[in-house]
Amino acid sequence: MPNHRVLLASRPNGAPTLENFRIEDAPIPTPGPGEVLLQTLYLSLDPYMRGRMNDGPSYVAPVPIGGVMGGGTVAKVIASNNERFAVGDVVLSSCGWQTHAVSDGKGLRKLDPAAAPVSTALGVLGMPGLTAYVGTLEIGEPKPGETFVVAAAAGPVGATAGQIAKLKGCRVVGIAGGAEKCAYLREELGFDAALDHRAADFPAQLKAACPEGVDIYFENVGGPVLHAVWPLLNNFARVPVCGMIANINLTESPAGPDRSVRMIRDIIIKRLTLRGFIISDHMSQTRDFARDVGGWIAEGRLRYKEDIVAGLDAAPEAFIGLLQGRNFGKLIVQVS
Amino acid sequence: MPNHRVLLASRPNGAPTLENFRIEDAPIPTPGPGEVLLQTLYLSLDPYMRGRMNDGPSYVAPVPIGGVMGGGTVAKVIASNNERFAVGDVVLSSCGWQTHAVSDGKGLRKLDPAAAPVSTALGVLGMPGLTAYVGTLEIGEPKPGETFVVAAAAGPVGATAGQIAKLKGCRVVGIAGGAEKCAYLREELGFDAALDHRAADFPAQLKAACPEGVDIYFENVGGPVLHAVWPLLNNFARVPVCGMIANINLTESPAGPDRSVRMIRDIIIKRLTLRGFIISDHMSQTRDFARDVGGWIAEGRLRYKEDIVAGLDAAPEAFIGLLQGRNFGKLIVQVS
Repeated sequence: MPNHRVLLASRPNGAPTLENFRIEDAPIPTPGPGEVLLQTLYLSLDPYMRGRMNDGPSYVAPVPIGGVMGGGTVAKVIASNNERFAVGDVVLSSCGWQTHAVSDGKGLRKLDPAAAPVSTALGVLGMPGLTAYVGTLEIGEPKPGETFVVAAAAGPVGATAGQIAKLKGCRVVGIAGGAEKCAYLREELGFDAALDHRAADFPAQLKAACPEGVDIYFENVGGPVLHAVWPLLNNFARVPVCGMIANINLTESPAGPDRSVRMIRDIIIKRLTLRGFIISDHMSQTRDFARDVGGWIAEGRLRYKEDIVAGLDAAPEAFIGLLQGRNFGKLIVQVS
Repeated sequence: MPNHRVLLASRPNGAPTLENFRIEDAPIPTPGPGEVLLQTLYLSLDPYMRGRMNDGPSYVAPVPIGGVMGGGTVAKVIASNNERFAVGDVVLSSCGWQTHAVSDGKGLRKLDPAAAPVSTALGVLGMPGLTAYVGTLEIGEPKPGETFVVAAAAGPVGATAGQIAKLKGCRVVGIAGGAEKCAYLREELGFDAALDHRAADFPAQLKAACPEGVDIYFENVGGPVLHAVWPLLNNFARVPVCGMIANINLTESPAGPDRSVRMIRDIIIKRLTLRGFIISDHMSQTRDFARDVGGWIAEGRLRYKEDIVAGLDAAPEAFIGLLQGRNFGKLIVQVS
């Protein structure tokens, strides 16, 4: 059995295409002293991976051309020279887009398959969930009766953020692509309103759905949704900024007008707070997060949805679809 | 003796001109029961007044056409039907651009001419000083060794902000217009560097003056200075946003490219915090501010400069000059 893997073949210019990836087999690596051999069970696909395909400066190192695409995984220990891990252990890991990897054990976290489905460690109980938790509570500071707006609301970050805000007493308005996702937000997750950003009159719908303005805008898409939310922001609104998937493929600034001038002006006039955050700076909140979100899930007060794709070979196309909003729920590749 | 006053004759389209103002005399008003008659000693001229000349929504109500231009003043009580105020009292007040006004006493604050020159209540010990204090300490959160950059640095907000940051152990870089102001910042106020934003190679000079990047950018000008500072911002930089005088006359968004996209991207990647503030929301800090800044002035650790113009008739031209950076120090009109 080879190590089946997906490499970065070339850097995308704008939206990635299948040609940017190359699938190949390599020998399964042999664990050295203190190392374990991991077999990937689940691979997480996340928007931040688009940034790693570039070679410009960012908060994550670029993947080298010819390198294995990186990514968070849930894996099983199938050989161990490390006394901390036994064969059969399931661990949260960073094997990347491949079926096998060796690890010296650093950064691995054992998962308890009895506590929750292990795939949730990549979603609602993993980085996306923690992102929602920190952005909503620490930066958003929701207060009962406030209006909370989140885009990409059917995704793992947005869906969790909106439900946390709802638990804190906010009026929650979700923005997603398509009627099916919107129905899910309203009917399954209890959002007060859910709007399709593709509707021609979306800005007017949003205004109608936020009759008292917007106090917190959890920003994870940028683009036209941001432009529609911006004029609705109330005085003292908070904008946790954690993503801008709408612009993730941009290679240069788009044509004008230069909206940054109005943005700065409104930041003053409305006393707005915009704060960017990257979840790796907030790992110290992992324990509180696991207790709170794990508890809400156990109590049936917080739900999650996974979009599971079968087989590593499907990863490139699934990732391209993720950037276009084609997934519905946390996108995960079932590798083996 | 008439009440000499300056009215808003018409709304400016872009930069104000003398034609937007009209000077006229009116009868001196008579104080009613509970009211006092004030004679203006000093009138403060401030950039925010440009916003009040518009009729769009802002955080201050527009001045009506034909109305007296508003503004903070230091005035003397020359008649009193209010037991809280005696003839001869000097008060911080809001008489606006006129020699006389009546007040019911609300919002008046008695000044002690023995404690400090009363004109300082409009500058370093008034709103501009408090703006610098709140923006620098509460929003900027300066730490020793950090790099603090402020523009309009020879103005009352910038000069005070830079000195406070210096007292807190920061490396302080001031940006101002012209060699004279820059020399003042370096030689009189002890800034570590001072740069003329009009220099052709200003962005390169700024980069050289901030070898370890920028941790706090006290934003009060916008425009090209912001564009030069922005790429130098360090991870976790804080940007207190209190003004954008460079764009204060803009009537619509300038031509592209649309910098807002890169702005949002950098807010994420660098985990920036941008927070707008308006000083009237922070009046609760007045006591701490007066104690700290008053103390630093008394100890000779904080300096200020006033640019005093004689006579109310000079106010329109002085205000136009303020928006062009022609003043040097806190701009005050000596009215009588």
